[in-house]
Amino acid sequence: MKIKVKGIGLTKFGELWNKNLLDLALEASLEAINDARITNNDIDAVYVGNMLIGKIAGQDHLGPVITSSLGLNCASFRIEGACASGGLAVHLAIQGILAGTYKNVLVVGAEKMTDAPSSQITWALMGASSSQERKAGLTFPALYALLAQAHIQKYKTTREELAQVSVKNHFHASLNNKAQYPFEISVEKVLNSSAISYPITLFDSSPISDGAGAVVLSSDTDSKGVYITGSAASSDTIDLAQRESLTELKATKLAAKSALAQAGMEISDIKVAEVHDCFTIAEILAMEDLGFCQKGMGGKFVTSRCTRLGGRCPVNTSGGLKACGHPVGATGVKQIIEITEQLRKTSGKRQVRNANCGLTQNVGGTGATVVVHVLQT
Amino acid sequence: MKIKVKGIGLTKFGELWNKNLLDLALEASLEAINDARITNNDIDAVYVGNMLIGKIAGQDHLGPVITSSLGLNCASFRIEGACASGGLAVHLAIQGILAGTYKNVLVVGAEKMTDAPSSQITWALMGASSSQERKAGLTFPALYALLAQAHIQKYKTTREELAQVSVKNHFHASLNNKAQYPFEISVEKVLNSSAISYPITLFDSSPISDGAGAVVLSSDTDSKGVYITGSAASSDTIDLAQRESLTELKATKLAAKSALAQAGMEISDIKVAEVHDCFTIAEILAMEDLGFCQKGMGGKFVTSRCTRLGGRCPVNTSGGLKACGHPVGATGVKQIIEITEQLRKTSGKRQVRNANCGLTQNVGGTGATVVVHVLQT
Repeated sequence: MKIKVKGIGLTKFGELWNKNLLDLALEASLEAINDARITNNDIDAVYVGNMLIGKIAGQDHLGPVITSSLGLNCASFRIEGACASGGLAVHLAIQGILAGTYKNVLVVGAEKMTDAPSSQITWALMGASSSQERKAGLTFPALYALLAQAHIQKYKTTREELAQVSVKNHFHASLNNKAQYPFEISVEKVLNSSAISYPITLFDSSPISDGAGAVVLSSDTDSKGVYITGSAASSDTIDLAQRESLTELKATKLAAKSALAQAGMEISDIKVAEVHDCFTIAEILAMEDLGFCQKGMGGKFVTSRCTRLGGRCPVNTSGGLKACGHPVGATGVKQIIEITEQLRKTSGKRQVRNANCGLTQNVGGTGATVVVHVLQT
Repeated sequence: MKIKVKGIGLTKFGELWNKNLLDLALEASLEAINDARITNNDIDAVYVGNMLIGKIAGQDHLGPVITSSLGLNCASFRIEGACASGGLAVHLAIQGILAGTYKNVLVVGAEKMTDAPSSQITWALMGASSSQERKAGLTFPALYALLAQAHIQKYKTTREELAQVSVKNHFHASLNNKAQYPFEISVEKVLNSSAISYPITLFDSSPISDGAGAVVLSSDTDSKGVYITGSAASSDTIDLAQRESLTELKATKLAAKSALAQAGMEISDIKVAEVHDCFTIAEILAMEDLGFCQKGMGGKFVTSRCTRLGGRCPVNTSGGLKACGHPVGATGVKQIIEITEQLRKTSGKRQVRNANCGLTQNVGGTGATVVVHVLQT
């Protein structure tokens, strides 16, 4: 499998009061089309990753809203898989190219969250979890707090180790002018920030964000560049209560195994990764489930600075969901963009040396959907 | 292109108070898997066509809700393109098979609409149209009423001709035990029913429905059976105000041309069709835009009984959206099921003689999305 990442475009992430969802989607799309050195008319299909617009703005049918704004009559699709909507859109776009049906496709991940009152956003996001969990009073931080508590109990993971994820990702974000929070924080700052759901604090948590990312993917394999060489999605029960284990995301393991096999790679070949750190515990689980370290060792692995810029395999050089921001439908596409920039060697102060193979992991809900991509030069 | 329709499953359509969305989706899915003579574990990916569940029931992330209920950890996707969600899910599932990524895929179209208050459903459905149109006070019947008025003005189409669509489809539904309204009505009944938005009356309009349809699609081309040989999606502006013409759906023309070309067929080869008659004017436009008759002649064409059972090319033998029902995300999948049954010669009293080639047309909004499929034995 060899799909070219022909163009990329990314808006600033943050509280973007002066832009609506369409503004953001078009800004990213036009940048990606321009970067691909093609014209709008060269686009054969548009795949939109978006979770919330139907619920919080009443606007469904986002595919043709975007195609018509680009002056196109081509096929368009909205893909929804909670916070993995962007990653799933990339996966499905790849299938359209591999099928031979489409040559150049635009994938747009976009979300506009800050216009809605926070109570509405909390309700809307909980749509990613099961109705039983919601009826039991669980919120998203509470679900991840259960995963964190299980990890602490079984593997003696500490709150300081969780906090190290946030500290590292804020450091990376401090080097990224697209990040929502481009500044450093300390372990103490994380530990002393407002409690959300024990052991998760405010600074263990990714924010509510606006933003969009777009990529042009292409069947063109003539030239040098960055290619997606593995793409896999897996699923798991939507309820935590039905899972075999609370200390791993099975869907991450399955998707990673498949995507790496497609690419003919081992996890040890990966030089840079973007993973789904919606809460700090999620990045620790990702390190273990992807195979970067042994099960139970995620906290120590992060603390060892292996995954910090300069380490063996920097993770979340964008700042991750925690510090770059998490406009949910955009996140999976942004991950592809960050790795593409790393592999193009255009990441500036965030550049990982010798980055020739990268990986992305995008999670929906508490792991009911996971999408993994492998990219290579 | 040759994708086998390996299994089909369809629930009753109607006001199904004792079943929730998951009940319906699983009933159709298990029937389709059983009909395909495979087991759940043979399914490689699940594509779900659904428009409204996030908005009216708060449950997003429907893919893993369904995969985990089937005991699967495979890839799953929710596809949304308003009332074309089901047709788009079929199109994307086909790409996954053509890509070689998936061998057997399950496509489930499902919608549970009757639990929500009608004011909420009206709001939710309007998400398929543009915010400008909504702000101007337009409802869905009103948008199609504008299309009908333009057709009446330009082509002297009559209200009686519009009514003939409904009369024919109710006749077909009277032979279909899955239909929401399995009874005949008269032209007078349509004309004298409550006005909704002139010239559209209650009986010119499809109902609010619950229901689900599922198909197993497969790369298996060894055996005899029904195959999808053409699949195309197109888009148009979401606002009617920006369209070049109000008397045609451009996206229907584009998608039909592409799907027929893929199949190596002409429209005259089609022996049976399921088209998107959300309002009676929509079937008249479909007849013209698909090329069954000349532009402007749709009303006379329907009145000529060519598209009634026994005619040259029966259309909407299921009863169509009008009389079989319109659970929006299910409709595009139900169309594939109806044509598959016709081509299998298992349609009983609704059987079209010599049916060896059929077509489906599924519309989102007022034609901002159109998906066309061609099926052959």
